[in-house]
Amino acid sequence: MDLCFTPASRLAALIRQRKVSPLDATQAVLAQIERVNPKVNAYCTVAAEAALADARKATAAVTRRSARLGPLHGVPVSIKDLTPTRGIRTTWGSKIYEQHVPTEDGLIVERLRAAGAIVVGKTNTPEFGAGANTRNAVFGATRNPWNLALTCGGSTGGGAVALATGMGPLAQGSDLGGSLRIPAAFCGVVGLRPSPGLVPIWPSPLAWESYGVQGPMARTVEDVALMLSAIAGPDARSPISYPVDTRAFVAAVKRPSARGLRVAWGGDLGVTPVDDEVLRVARDAMAILQRSGARVTDEHPDLDGVHDVVLVSRGARMVGLHEEKLPKWRDVMQEHLVRNIDSGLKLTASDIGRCERQRSALSTRLREFFERYDVIATPTTAVRPFPVETWYPTEINGQPMGNYIAWVMLTYAFTVVGLPAISIPCGFTRDGLPVGLQLAGRWREETTVLRAAAAFESAAPWADKRPPVVA
Amino acid sequence: MDLCFTPASRLAALIRQRKVSPLDATQAVLAQIERVNPKVNAYCTVAAEAALADARKATAAVTRRSARLGPLHGVPVSIKDLTPTRGIRTTWGSKIYEQHVPTEDGLIVERLRAAGAIVVGKTNTPEFGAGANTRNAVFGATRNPWNLALTCGGSTGGGAVALATGMGPLAQGSDLGGSLRIPAAFCGVVGLRPSPGLVPIWPSPLAWESYGVQGPMARTVEDVALMLSAIAGPDARSPISYPVDTRAFVAAVKRPSARGLRVAWGGDLGVTPVDDEVLRVARDAMAILQRSGARVTDEHPDLDGVHDVVLVSRGARMVGLHEEKLPKWRDVMQEHLVRNIDSGLKLTASDIGRCERQRSALSTRLREFFERYDVIATPTTAVRPFPVETWYPTEINGQPMGNYIAWVMLTYAFTVVGLPAISIPCGFTRDGLPVGLQLAGRWREETTVLRAAAAFESAAPWADKRPPVVA
Repeated sequence: MDLCFTPASRLAALIRQRKVSPLDATQAVLAQIERVNPKVNAYCTVAAEAALADARKATAAVTRRSARLGPLHGVPVSIKDLTPTRGIRTTWGSKIYEQHVPTEDGLIVERLRAAGAIVVGKTNTPEFGAGANTRNAVFGATRNPWNLALTCGGSTGGGAVALATGMGPLAQGSDLGGSLRIPAAFCGVVGLRPSPGLVPIWPSPLAWESYGVQGPMARTVEDVALMLSAIAGPDARSPISYPVDTRAFVAAVKRPSARGLRVAWGGDLGVTPVDDEVLRVARDAMAILQRSGARVTDEHPDLDGVHDVVLVSRGARMVGLHEEKLPKWRDVMQEHLVRNIDSGLKLTASDIGRCERQRSALSTRLREFFERYDVIATPTTAVRPFPVETWYPTEINGQPMGNYIAWVMLTYAFTVVGLPAISIPCGFTRDGLPVGLQLAGRWREETTVLRAAAAFESAAPWADKRPPVVA
Repeated sequence: MDLCFTPASRLAALIRQRKVSPLDATQAVLAQIERVNPKVNAYCTVAAEAALADARKATAAVTRRSARLGPLHGVPVSIKDLTPTRGIRTTWGSKIYEQHVPTEDGLIVERLRAAGAIVVGKTNTPEFGAGANTRNAVFGATRNPWNLALTCGGSTGGGAVALATGMGPLAQGSDLGGSLRIPAAFCGVVGLRPSPGLVPIWPSPLAWESYGVQGPMARTVEDVALMLSAIAGPDARSPISYPVDTRAFVAAVKRPSARGLRVAWGGDLGVTPVDDEVLRVARDAMAILQRSGARVTDEHPDLDGVHDVVLVSRGARMVGLHEEKLPKWRDVMQEHLVRNIDSGLKLTASDIGRCERQRSALSTRLREFFERYDVIATPTTAVRPFPVETWYPTEINGQPMGNYIAWVMLTYAFTVVGLPAISIPCGFTRDGLPVGLQLAGRWREETTVLRAAAAFESAAPWADKRPPVVA
């Protein structure tokens, strides 16, 4: 058995049955990191010693009290380098924090540890997560395991690559415009953007902010559901968090079937050009959902105004999060990020008010659209993975892209209306690059999204294909 | 029995027992409105015909299927004129909407009707609810029933006066800086500001906004709990709403006792001067809580920065809600409101970002403070009711107030950190004006706030005193 590619759900079961020990699982992942990470640069910091110490404790615990083990007991997990980890360097991909070692875990790390997971290290990200790529001045670029010349997407690029290459079955990440979905699509793994507040965030300088979220990535839909069940639920430190029945997530992926699901094939959503081949591969995937019992119709909601909402909300958030760094660190931060903050600083209360009104109107239109559908399906990304040296695609199908964020509108559209969305592998381009299918659901209906994704996954013939770098 | 002063809880029980009919209750309230409203101007629109028609249907329903009656079956309720009511004029206190008749109920009205309540009319408010008074160019001023020369506070002033004078046992209202609490304090009734999202708001041009809320007012804490149980709980139209056990509110006020409650007497919270007599009356009320079993300590949290958060968040919200009205209606809207919007228009993304960072920091300090206490108690208002012609107090104890909003900092402080807070009557000034006691609780702990308030109320000797206008 290859412990590196064993799903977390199975690994947790084997550990509870004492067929595999947490130490075995952790050692296997650390060995894989040693072999593969130099080629892809997914982990920026490996916490081998701490992980082995935790794994030994977890191994001892199995024999002592197997009845009370957490749902992730002994399962290795990676943490994105934007999330603080006690005693493990956390840089936010920034030269400013190059040597920073937090004294406290972030809330989501607390919860993963409480569920029994073993933190093996930190995964790479662009500086402060800004951009759907994974390159920074501290650690350089993370590479796509399906073609090392290409980007893995981002900003949870390190996490996605770790999953795709067997360097851990679970990856914690975050998502503003698609950072849990885009790298999942580019690397052939699964990433779920939960509803804002489902997974409480702490620390956060903007506690009421409802655009950025944290969430789970894994190689399978079931593992994503399992991880979500361990990190979801209210906490007073995150005032927008709310109660939820966390058992519903895993229940939703058991005995997968799409029977009765009404799926809207949204195509390009009317918001962006989409690479012809990517669109075709994702569209072809609808046949699989149909065979699994879904009814698929070609229609997308009216998303007029979404570009404005994205640009204004993004700019205002950048200012709220990073303006205070400018006086001291302007020359240290990456040019790209500084440009983002500077352009956000031009925004007024009027811009922000208009943005929030447009966002509310969009949300109403989506809600009405979802009266007729259970799920909206689109390609996750508008393009295939592009060269790792490039920050973002400047054209799609020959059409020039207006700005650096235009190409992520397919994912960002569901961000601004606060709806849950998952990216699952749905096939390959002719030259062997993975393509992601995005399934977005109704307000707070993670269960429907998970159910549709599990049904799709169980019928998808390419689920076990591995990237060349580990094949 | 005086049906006009019978609490809603008792009235609902009598109706279920067929001892009182919904028609009796509604006719009694309409007769009281005819007698008293001309003196106080609490109702700006009375929907007598619609209310009587609803009451007749409700009366017929009692005989047909008493088992399935809603918890408010046949109980009259007033709706603030900021909340749309189908077929009943809704003006927002503005000349712009002087003749506006909505075609749809707001979500909270839907829920009240679904619970069986009878909508008797609309209560007065300042234009678009801006300001803690109740005066507008459409309907004029609402007067304090304890002294007709004085203000009833606001912005849910009409609702508070209706309650105090027996013109309905329940009043729906809304609260930004204290609009459910301040008029309750000035009129000797009870008003609860719920956590943002507990009572879903629809329609709303700013669906994710977390400062303004809607909520219940009544003459008793039990009635507030009962009304809250009918209007709380998630709805997809309000994306920040969340699930809750609505039975917990009424359960929290049964067999009231403050035993074991740790109460921080917050006094002036370090944020505003407070009228000496108001402070003394509220402070004296602590003895009642102590007798009921609470442990009271003098301490308040560090609220440094709260003035900035209030001014910036308020300005930004004004812009988001009203900027679009300026080009056409600048000369029609009240000067006060226009000044508010104009000053909000000067705000930048930088101001708003700083405000949200300060708000998050304040929230953390409050959470830490609440590790040692269950409730923070303060006077609800910094002043006694002031002359009805005055927009706001310009000095307190001889100290000039910096701006028109400074005097409501005691209530606004809990707004910005998103904590639940109730105002209950706690005594009178020497010249017979009611004083309100504010009890604020932990994140989403309405139950603790209700429990403390019920314990206080059950021990308070002045609970049944009526204002001179109806004495």
